[in-house]
Amino acid sequence: MIVATCLNPALDVTYSVAALQPGTSHRVRTVRRRPGGKGVNVASVLTQQAVPALVTGTVGGRIGDELIVGLDTAGIAHRFSPIAGTTRQTVTITSEDEATVLNEPGPIVTDSEWEAFTAVFAGLLDDAEIVTLSGSLPGGVRSSAYAELIGIAHQHDAVVILDCEGESLVEALHAGPDIVKINEHEAASSTGIETDSTKGVFAAAEELHVLGAVEVVITRGAAGVAARTRDGRFVGTAARTVNGNPTGAGDAFTAGLAASTAEGADWPTRLRRASAWAAAAVAMPTAGELDLQVATDHENRTTIEEIPK
Amino acid sequence: MIVATCLNPALDVTYSVAALQPGTSHRVRTVRRRPGGKGVNVASVLTQQAVPALVTGTVGGRIGDELIVGLDTAGIAHRFSPIAGTTRQTVTITSEDEATVLNEPGPIVTDSEWEAFTAVFAGLLDDAEIVTLSGSLPGGVRSSAYAELIGIAHQHDAVVILDCEGESLVEALHAGPDIVKINEHEAASSTGIETDSTKGVFAAAEELHVLGAVEVVITRGAAGVAARTRDGRFVGTAARTVNGNPTGAGDAFTAGLAASTAEGADWPTRLRRASAWAAAAVAMPTAGELDLQVATDHENRTTIEEIPK
Repeated sequence: MIVATCLNPALDVTYSVAALQPGTSHRVRTVRRRPGGKGVNVASVLTQQAVPALVTGTVGGRIGDELIVGLDTAGIAHRFSPIAGTTRQTVTITSEDEATVLNEPGPIVTDSEWEAFTAVFAGLLDDAEIVTLSGSLPGGVRSSAYAELIGIAHQHDAVVILDCEGESLVEALHAGPDIVKINEHEAASSTGIETDSTKGVFAAAEELHVLGAVEVVITRGAAGVAARTRDGRFVGTAARTVNGNPTGAGDAFTAGLAASTAEGADWPTRLRRASAWAAAAVAMPTAGELDLQVATDHENRTTIEEIPK
Repeated sequence: MIVATCLNPALDVTYSVAALQPGTSHRVRTVRRRPGGKGVNVASVLTQQAVPALVTGTVGGRIGDELIVGLDTAGIAHRFSPIAGTTRQTVTITSEDEATVLNEPGPIVTDSEWEAFTAVFAGLLDDAEIVTLSGSLPGGVRSSAYAELIGIAHQHDAVVILDCEGESLVEALHAGPDIVKINEHEAASSTGIETDSTKGVFAAAEELHVLGAVEVVITRGAAGVAARTRDGRFVGTAARTVNGNPTGAGDAFTAGLAASTAEGADWPTRLRRASAWAAAAVAMPTAGELDLQVATDHENRTTIEEIPK
C-alpha cells in the first residue's frame, strides 16, 4: 500500500465567474467544493488508477468534516488524526482565461496533536511499502516534522518520496529521504544553484544528494525531468506538450513515481510513468484526475536517456 | 420586538491580501468568518443598540450550522427554519485600497421548506411590532414571496419595512408594504424614473406609492435621504460625509428606521436616526456594527427639511 501524507489539507472551493475585476462585486456562476491539498491529490490519482493507497494527515472543524465526506464520496481511503483547529479552504476563481488562487494559512497543530498524528502515521506503516510526504507544514509544527516522519517510515522499512521546499526540505534531508521529488524552481531556491540548464539541474540534484537525499528527481515542466539515482543519471523528454491546467501535475507525477516504485520498476520505467501521469493531469481541468488516453500516449512516447557521469 | 427577515443569509468570509492580482496565487494574511446577509446585519445593529430583535429565515448544511454558531457567539437572537440545501458563503477579498466580492448563488428552497418557514415566521409575529424584509430571494422561491410575508405580517398587525429590488419588489408592492426603503439606484431601476435630482427621487417615490407602498424612503448615499410619508415629504441632509466601508450602511439605515418606528417617533426623528446609524456603519470596517460617536454626532447634525407639495 502507498500512504500519501497531507499534513495541511484543504477544502478546495472553485468559483467560476465571467471575469475577475478587482474592486467590484461578482455573481458566482458555479461553485465546486472538493477535498484538496497535495497529498490528497496523490491519493486521488492513485485511487483512480486502482493502486491501493490511503491518505493521512490532520483535519479539524466543520471544513475538516466536509473534506472527510468528500473523500468518502470520491472513494478515497483515509485515516486522518483530529485537531481542534479548523482545516483551511482555498478559493480558486476561474474565468475564461485565468485562475486566481487564495490560500488560507490553515490551522495551528499543537504538540500533543502532532504526537497523536505520528502515532496514527506509525500505525499505518506496517502495510505500507511507500510513503509520500507532500506540501507545506501546518502552523505550530516544527520544521523538522518531515525528518521525524522519515525516521518513523524507515523504522518500518517504507520507502519515502518527499515533495516539499524551503526550511522543511533542508531539515528533512538530514533524515535521508529515499527520493526527493521537486521542481526546478524549488531545486534552485533550496540549493542556490541555477537550474535553467540540464547541467545546472544535475548540479542541484548532486547537492541535494550530498545533503542527504538518496535519490533526486527534478521535474522541469514541459522540458521534462532529470533524475540522479543509484542506477545512474537520467533525462526524460516528452514527445509533445500538453496544454491545460498544471495544478496538481506535480502530485500526479509523485503518484506515478510511487506506483511504479511500489511495482519494483526500473528507473526509466518509473520516470516514463510519472511523466505520463503528470501530462495526463494537465489535460484534466481538476487536480487529482488523469486523462487516461493522454497517460498511455505519453508513456509510450516519452524518451528516457541515460547521461554518463 | 423587531423581526429581521433574512431569506438568503450567508457566511461572510473576508480575506485580506497585499494586493489582488488576477491570474496569480495569493497567500491570505487573515481570514474572518462571520454571519452575513442584509437581515442578519439589521439584527446585528439592533442587538448592538440594545433594541429587542430577532433574525429569521432559512439555513442549511455545515455553513448554515457555522452561521448559527456565529449568531450565538455574537449574542444575536435567531429563529431560522431548516432547509436541505447548504447556506451560501460570500468571499470578500480586501487589500489596502479595494474590496472584491464573490457572491455564491445560494441554495434552492423547496415549496415544502418555504411553507415550513412561513409557519415559523407567522409564529414570531405575535410579539413583533415591526418586520423588516431585506435582500434577495433564495432560488426556488416565487417572486411573490415578500408579498406573501407582508400579508402574514399584516394579519398580525405588524408594520413592514421592505428593502429589496427588481421583480420581488414589484410583486411585493401589490401587498401594500408599510414602508419601502431602497436606494436611489434601486428606485430608478424599478420605476424607470431618473433619480439624479431631488425632483426625480420624489417622482420615483410617488410612483412606488401609486404601485402600493404606503410610505417610501429613498436613500441617496452622501446626498442624504428623501421620504414620501403620510405626514409629508422630507429631505434629510448630513452635516458631513463619513469615509469608510459602505457595506451594510443600508442595513444600518433599515435598523435605525425600524428602531425609531417601534418607538413611535415622528418622521423627522426617524430619518435622523436612520441616517445617523447608516453613517455610523460606514465608519466601521465590518457590516452590522456602528461607531457610536459618529451615530450621536450625525443624529445631532443631520438636517431634516419638509418639502411642500
